[in-house]
Amino acid sequence: MKNVLIVKGHFIYTRTAENYEVYKNSCLVSVDGKVEGIYPSVPDRFKGVPVHDYGNRLVIPGFVDLHLHAAQFLQSGMGMTKQLLDWLEDYTFDLEREFQNREFARKAYSCFAEKLVACGTLRACIFASSSTTGTRELFEILKEKGIGAYVGKVNMDRNAPDFIIETTEDSLKGTKYLIEKYRDERLVKPIITPRFAPTSTEGLLKGLGELAVKYDLPVQSHLSESLDEIRWVQDLFKGAKNYSDVYFKNNLFKQTKTVMAHGIYLDDDEKKLVKKMDLMLAHCPDSNINLRSGIMPVRTYLDMGLKIGLGSDIAGGHKIGLNEAMVRAIQLSKILNLTNDKLKPLTVSEVFYMGTKGGGSFFGKTGSFEKGYLFDALVIEDDSMIAKRYSPEDRLEKFIYTGDDRNICARYVEGDKL
Amino acid sequence: MKNVLIVKGHFIYTRTAENYEVYKNSCLVSVDGKVEGIYPSVPDRFKGVPVHDYGNRLVIPGFVDLHLHAAQFLQSGMGMTKQLLDWLEDYTFDLEREFQNREFARKAYSCFAEKLVACGTLRACIFASSSTTGTRELFEILKEKGIGAYVGKVNMDRNAPDFIIETTEDSLKGTKYLIEKYRDERLVKPIITPRFAPTSTEGLLKGLGELAVKYDLPVQSHLSESLDEIRWVQDLFKGAKNYSDVYFKNNLFKQTKTVMAHGIYLDDDEKKLVKKMDLMLAHCPDSNINLRSGIMPVRTYLDMGLKIGLGSDIAGGHKIGLNEAMVRAIQLSKILNLTNDKLKPLTVSEVFYMGTKGGGSFFGKTGSFEKGYLFDALVIEDDSMIAKRYSPEDRLEKFIYTGDDRNICARYVEGDKL
Repeated sequence: MKNVLIVKGHFIYTRTAENYEVYKNSCLVSVDGKVEGIYPSVPDRFKGVPVHDYGNRLVIPGFVDLHLHAAQFLQSGMGMTKQLLDWLEDYTFDLEREFQNREFARKAYSCFAEKLVACGTLRACIFASSSTTGTRELFEILKEKGIGAYVGKVNMDRNAPDFIIETTEDSLKGTKYLIEKYRDERLVKPIITPRFAPTSTEGLLKGLGELAVKYDLPVQSHLSESLDEIRWVQDLFKGAKNYSDVYFKNNLFKQTKTVMAHGIYLDDDEKKLVKKMDLMLAHCPDSNINLRSGIMPVRTYLDMGLKIGLGSDIAGGHKIGLNEAMVRAIQLSKILNLTNDKLKPLTVSEVFYMGTKGGGSFFGKTGSFEKGYLFDALVIEDDSMIAKRYSPEDRLEKFIYTGDDRNICARYVEGDKL
Repeated sequence: MKNVLIVKGHFIYTRTAENYEVYKNSCLVSVDGKVEGIYPSVPDRFKGVPVHDYGNRLVIPGFVDLHLHAAQFLQSGMGMTKQLLDWLEDYTFDLEREFQNREFARKAYSCFAEKLVACGTLRACIFASSSTTGTRELFEILKEKGIGAYVGKVNMDRNAPDFIIETTEDSLKGTKYLIEKYRDERLVKPIITPRFAPTSTEGLLKGLGELAVKYDLPVQSHLSESLDEIRWVQDLFKGAKNYSDVYFKNNLFKQTKTVMAHGIYLDDDEKKLVKKMDLMLAHCPDSNINLRSGIMPVRTYLDMGLKIGLGSDIAGGHKIGLNEAMVRAIQLSKILNLTNDKLKPLTVSEVFYMGTKGGGSFFGKTGSFEKGYLFDALVIEDDSMIAKRYSPEDRLEKFIYTGDDRNICARYVEGDKL
């Protein structure tokens, strides 16, 4: 039997955000990279297939990071006294310029990709830099790693230092080159990536929206992250009803599949539009606090039925492990609860869902072990004293709160062991 | 020359909270475990002494953790949906009971001590459990590790499950036994440790205060951590003016050296008393958020001149690395700043000071590299791309935000390499 994989261990995942599904001491069968089922023992029809037996270890869906900047990885955890716009000026742009150098890009992106995969992120929506050459390196490195990703060359044609902006024409040309080169890849694909409205002319946004629609490509950008930024957008785009409208008018707001990072300060019209378009928001809690942007009202958004996944937002966020984003999402929700007890804190299963199946829906059927889902998985090893004493649910919570790459002893993407 | 140590590298520490002192490519001379000075090169009088040359690495003071529970280490990151009093009932007490078993205590405390030292904490104020036998194991294990610590047998004679409380008499007797056994140790010493007011009778508090004064021993406990707890204390101690007064009346509020964890909701009288007595508060940001206790108004307290160090508060806090407490202290201060811009966020040097020299003052002269300070130090190794590109200040910030035990390649306590 080709393409059959059997994995044994304790399986834990979230079908819905409210609860875990737990299968202790079970066998998961994956056929052609997709979950066929979870059984108490190997079904007769699969007898003879070698079993990857992980004993008392946990097997969980791989992490899905909906928002991070590969070109900022080196500066993670630096310049954290700044707020968004100053931080971009003082730290970020200088580093991003280096990625025009192919050798530098290869070296820095390799560090990034290695740590990303080590920490269990098996699907990610990634901003590269404005350099087409540098971005090509990132595509190649991620392909070698074997994870799933949407990678965007960052488009900017104004309001950033000369050394990293391009003309509208060059920005679109480079984007098109990467689309043509990588659109038929299985795992690492292009995504349309205006940095954010303020660094784009209306012409650039229009051109990018056309590319998105023409090639049916996904879109990622930033939305409503800080109050200064929102005022700036209002100044720059006088004709727009609100921040979201700047993207919407240009076919960049879920006319194709779209994820927007942050969305902290959406007004009522924007919230309605996000909901109507079924657009995915990426909640990036560490970044929002580090840059003093604000706190996303996640509980309120969830109650409204908005779709929310998680982002590490390297390097506004400092930790690349998505479990850290899960913890911080809970912590921020607890802070909101301190002043308004109607806003129930996020539970561990809710943030786990956001970081697996919830965010995973952006990539199709991934982030769960339900039948038909792509088998993207992490095998978690914890201390024997913990494994002996506590339930899978407690052990998973402990891994989320205290674990790191050292606790992940195997990784699978679409049934392939990395 | 005996007892002379020379260490070469980039030294960075905080003499005051406002700024770093930085000595690049310098030589620190330590004599008899104390800093003699930092020089551009080895002074003539020390020529011939072998140099521990750490090249381009950073050398920083060791971390000082003013509040954590060794007996809760295994449960770090579990039960985080609970608030303080429920969490104690549902998770903590059951685990603490196991420490009555000597073998269990040795195994669990060994895990704890190993991770604590690995993460760079070289001085700590530690709660054990109520078991005298178990606590003795912790003393022995920490002595083997070679770090400095105050270790407290936890005193409780009411309001906790029968299996972990003692009679007042037994609680005092066990405490006295450990005092007599360990009071003359050089590095690991006893500290008087009522768990907190609600689990102590007035008789126990009185007895503990007498021991503190008689043996001139330091005191640690919890103060004003959550609103439920404060109401409970008011109910239990009708004669007390406030929570602090319960301790104060019993010689447990800086009649000898005292550190109190949390102190989130101090009323004006309490703040004045804390200031007048020059009592040390241990700020435990992760714990305060995880258990939804509240946010300590650190900036306000600092402006008043209160003395504040940091605590990981394992296992209300989930991360044992004190750098994580530094980050969370900054993050919480940024959250307070979001709603009141007069409350300036804590800076990196401020939290670094709190976690080194500030908290270190509880142990005497440690946490700084000024002349006469005990040479407690960590050597920090970061990625070569980072080391080449960024300043010592940026590299330290990055280590604090993103580093872990793998970045610490050497540790010194009082001039001895661990």
